[in-house]
Amino acid sequence: MAQTHLWFTELQNDNLTIGLRIEKTIHSEKTEYQQLDVYKTVQYGNLLVLDGCIMTTDKDEFVYHEMLAHVPLHTHPNPKSVLVVGGGDGGIIREVIKHPSVERAVLAEIDGRVVEASKKYFPHIASGLSDPRVDVQIVDGIRYVEEHPNEFDVILIDSTDPVGPAVGLFQRPFYESVFRALKEDGLMAAQTESPFINQDLIRQVYGDVRATFPVAKLYLAYVPTYPTGMWSFTLGSKKYRPQDVSEVRVHDTKYYNREIHHASLALPNFVKELVGE
Amino acid sequence: MAQTHLWFTELQNDNLTIGLRIEKTIHSEKTEYQQLDVYKTVQYGNLLVLDGCIMTTDKDEFVYHEMLAHVPLHTHPNPKSVLVVGGGDGGIIREVIKHPSVERAVLAEIDGRVVEASKKYFPHIASGLSDPRVDVQIVDGIRYVEEHPNEFDVILIDSTDPVGPAVGLFQRPFYESVFRALKEDGLMAAQTESPFINQDLIRQVYGDVRATFPVAKLYLAYVPTYPTGMWSFTLGSKKYRPQDVSEVRVHDTKYYNREIHHASLALPNFVKELVGE
Repeated sequence: MAQTHLWFTELQNDNLTIGLRIEKTIHSEKTEYQQLDVYKTVQYGNLLVLDGCIMTTDKDEFVYHEMLAHVPLHTHPNPKSVLVVGGGDGGIIREVIKHPSVERAVLAEIDGRVVEASKKYFPHIASGLSDPRVDVQIVDGIRYVEEHPNEFDVILIDSTDPVGPAVGLFQRPFYESVFRALKEDGLMAAQTESPFINQDLIRQVYGDVRATFPVAKLYLAYVPTYPTGMWSFTLGSKKYRPQDVSEVRVHDTKYYNREIHHASLALPNFVKELVGE
Repeated sequence: MAQTHLWFTELQNDNLTIGLRIEKTIHSEKTEYQQLDVYKTVQYGNLLVLDGCIMTTDKDEFVYHEMLAHVPLHTHPNPKSVLVVGGGDGGIIREVIKHPSVERAVLAEIDGRVVEASKKYFPHIASGLSDPRVDVQIVDGIRYVEEHPNEFDVILIDSTDPVGPAVGLFQRPFYESVFRALKEDGLMAAQTESPFINQDLIRQVYGDVRATFPVAKLYLAYVPTYPTGMWSFTLGSKKYRPQDVSEVRVHDTKYYNREIHHASLALPNFVKELVGE
């Protein structure tokens, strides 16, 4: 009998693909906001796909989630109140509540179906969502931020790619709104795509964050299932600098540690040039 | 008229692919040692492929070549005599001769057709091969190393993947032979695949290098066209430590700089665990 090979192939842009061999499709639905698919892959465990873009996989999710959470959270000396915009899979929340100082973590996710699918098919990613400190709000994150001024120590923007429902999360008015939603010594971080292929976006977002916050810093991590494997995050802060972190409070991590915190802030020359550092 | 889309797809292992859209095939031949193909891609410029594996592309070659050369060369205070094993495209040699102390750089490449194809289709990568300090030897690198004891300050192993002609370059007798070919304060570095998917290989090579050299260190760089985008290099040294580098001598680089030197030595927890650090 001929053997069947099933592949999920992401068209990362018009000229690049990544392919993951799959065993089967586990779930597929059109939600109010996007196409949501879950596959079981051979290499990376379960795979969450939104509108054809790889969001996360069981095997490499730890990198993105740890790095979007722990670099900014360690930059704040005492984060108590944290907001995650997007991030319906719960991975960022799981990392946020590892910080003993955190008293309240709000998840503002527009698509409740992402939360439900993650609880069902990615239970170890969604594991923090039932923590008593966590408040899951199925709302438009942009509006939520506007309506909660001066409330958060840290805001983390865990968006999809800058197409469809996430477009507004990459625009300057949103960062200004995030600034207002932060307390006087608050800070934010956002996922900002790959320096190898999303240069215009990074230049624009970094410029907007630098124009809005006294401190701006790009940092990097290795994410195998995202385009090019080099992923950037942009941090904006009213007061504290990520370079000044000397002590790490969270140690049950697979990627993040004190040396990685500082290493992620070191930029290759071509990335420095991109952000004008 | 229907539009034609041509793609080069590398099967990175049984379960992962990367695809690059190509405009056309530029060159294709079966050499004495391997299948050699050159494609013009849309995203990455020209692409060199050996036995179906991506070797290098015009657009991202600088990362791999700078990082395999400059981390070890800066670790040595005064490298004069350098050997590159493999590396027939010339990219490592181009970086080596940026160091003003280098008086002699030998390229020991088994397949002369790689050198010729690179000169023709990747002239900016091969540019250093005509430098008067450079000695191109079309020889078996393993034998060349055995026959030149106590001769080199730095040996760089720029091999293909550990299949076919390169298998011997990943084995302990070769590292012991490299040790003997180095001067009393010499050091080596080798490309050693991805920590996300080549864990057994890295564990074995790192163990062999650590058993052979007083100093062993794994370091990392972002290479978009290699599997997972996270690439490792293993450094073995008789005396000098890469952690002790305080000054950088080469500045015309697109990736490498002093902060990146030290950042590349910081390992995520799962990689630390892999090498027992």
